[in-house]
Amino acid sequence: MTDDPAFDLKSYLMAVRSRVDRWLRGYLGDSDTDPKILRAMSYSVMAGGKRLRPVLCIAAAQSVGGDDELVMPLACALEMIHTYSLIHDDLPAMDDDDMRRGNPTCHVKFDEPTAILAGDALLTFAFEILALAGSRRSHSQITERWLHVMAKVAAASGYQGMLGGQMQDMMLEGSSISAARLEALHRLKTGKMIEVSVESGAMIAGASDKQIQSLLGYAENIGLAFQVTDDILNVKGDPTVMGKATGTDKLRGKNTYPDLLGLDGAEAMAETLINNALKRLDGFDKRAEPLRAIARYVIERNR
Amino acid sequence: MTDDPAFDLKSYLMAVRSRVDRWLRGYLGDSDTDPKILRAMSYSVMAGGKRLRPVLCIAAAQSVGGDDELVMPLACALEMIHTYSLIHDDLPAMDDDDMRRGNPTCHVKFDEPTAILAGDALLTFAFEILALAGSRRSHSQITERWLHVMAKVAAASGYQGMLGGQMQDMMLEGSSISAARLEALHRLKTGKMIEVSVESGAMIAGASDKQIQSLLGYAENIGLAFQVTDDILNVKGDPTVMGKATGTDKLRGKNTYPDLLGLDGAEAMAETLINNALKRLDGFDKRAEPLRAIARYVIERNR
Repeated sequence: MTDDPAFDLKSYLMAVRSRVDRWLRGYLGDSDTDPKILRAMSYSVMAGGKRLRPVLCIAAAQSVGGDDELVMPLACALEMIHTYSLIHDDLPAMDDDDMRRGNPTCHVKFDEPTAILAGDALLTFAFEILALAGSRRSHSQITERWLHVMAKVAAASGYQGMLGGQMQDMMLEGSSISAARLEALHRLKTGKMIEVSVESGAMIAGASDKQIQSLLGYAENIGLAFQVTDDILNVKGDPTVMGKATGTDKLRGKNTYPDLLGLDGAEAMAETLINNALKRLDGFDKRAEPLRAIARYVIERNR
Repeated sequence: MTDDPAFDLKSYLMAVRSRVDRWLRGYLGDSDTDPKILRAMSYSVMAGGKRLRPVLCIAAAQSVGGDDELVMPLACALEMIHTYSLIHDDLPAMDDDDMRRGNPTCHVKFDEPTAILAGDALLTFAFEILALAGSRRSHSQITERWLHVMAKVAAASGYQGMLGGQMQDMMLEGSSISAARLEALHRLKTGKMIEVSVESGAMIAGASDKQIQSLLGYAENIGLAFQVTDDILNVKGDPTVMGKATGTDKLRGKNTYPDLLGLDGAEAMAETLINNALKRLDGFDKRAEPLRAIARYVIERNR
């Protein structure tokens, strides 16, 4: 395992995030004269957040020496899909959340119908961006790769992936489940999208099948670790740092890792997962340093 | 203009619809043991309806002598996008409709969160189906064609198309607008999806640019005619035949053609549009007979 203590994750994340934000603003605009639906889309996407999926997508492309310019549309599409899922999750009929990323949620800032339609529009726009990016390339091998990636992104975010997980999560609220069941649920709800972010970035960048398998193992571990630390932060995080309320999982009767394993048990689990993730990168050179640093950041973050 | 009085639209529609339904059932299943989200998706799609978009897509492919087997995934994706838009439109926060196609709407049959997620999942699944269909073909020219079609379908159903129209419709409810404004609104809300159904079917089937232009003109006219007759049926249709309540537009203060032009004026407008649509098919041979018959059916239908 190469480990470069000189790698500065903070600067890396700042640079990548500002590049992603520039691209997102290019797609969504930020004019007051835009139609209301576009303003709502832009409002929710530009409200910020960690940009974890775009960052993973770009870092995965870089880890195999790929042209990271090529994956920018993909990185943006992944963030739009993530944002749409948050908008719909926050709706009164769903989790009924008023605040997200330190700002009023979409249906509070605008109204409920606008939030429903803006979410739909972000999902649709994500696939438009992918299709346009794919058809701009003349090389037929790349074209086919884009179609594969689109199918994978759709599967990861659909009823057999993220949406299936959201559905299960909703149905299981208030009933107690096993750690294994909870893991399967999170694997769908947040894991699949994190996995596909890494996988699709690497695929577009021309990774080998063997590289993709290793990267998928990495993504699986950090995806779950991310969920475990999310649960931990909901118990002991600082609401002012996180930009949203804490302690909400308990109030809602959500199944969480601290509940099942205790706070210490959950923290130990997150650490084991991160070590497993790092091991999967053993065959990669220093170009995978961003992925390694992100893995460590997952358990060290405070929001 | 060739006109084949022997063409039997009723049999044609029955055959095409049952083929589309077989494909849709293949995609969505119909087992009681399916996960709830899939049952909700299947429930709303299999509740029936006219299958206008798949029929137009298939008939357009046939009009240029294309392999209509090739467009079946596209035809199904278009119907899923249409159905998702109805599920979300019917939600309590939107039109708050309890009945659709003679059955309880998705959020009444299941519940509101399920209806939101099932709608999202149908939209996502539509793009998965398109991406998979596109990557199955090895011919690189077809692969690129699929990407173009996907970008067009996404644009037609997104914030600059259908969703933009739904948004405008919602915002304009209760305020009176001009006939030109109403036409622009419907062009987005229902027109774009009808246009892209015809256009994409023809594109996948290998139509020439000139053929596509004529077919787009056809689609534009019948799309608007369809909306005008929808408004007319909401005034004078039979609720038992239509499977949904009538007179609802007036109650909601919706802008309609009978309001703006009177019932006679609206009927005259629909007839003019259908004649324009038929004229655009002058250069086509008898393989366009289904498209011609569909145009006439638009104003003769009673549901």
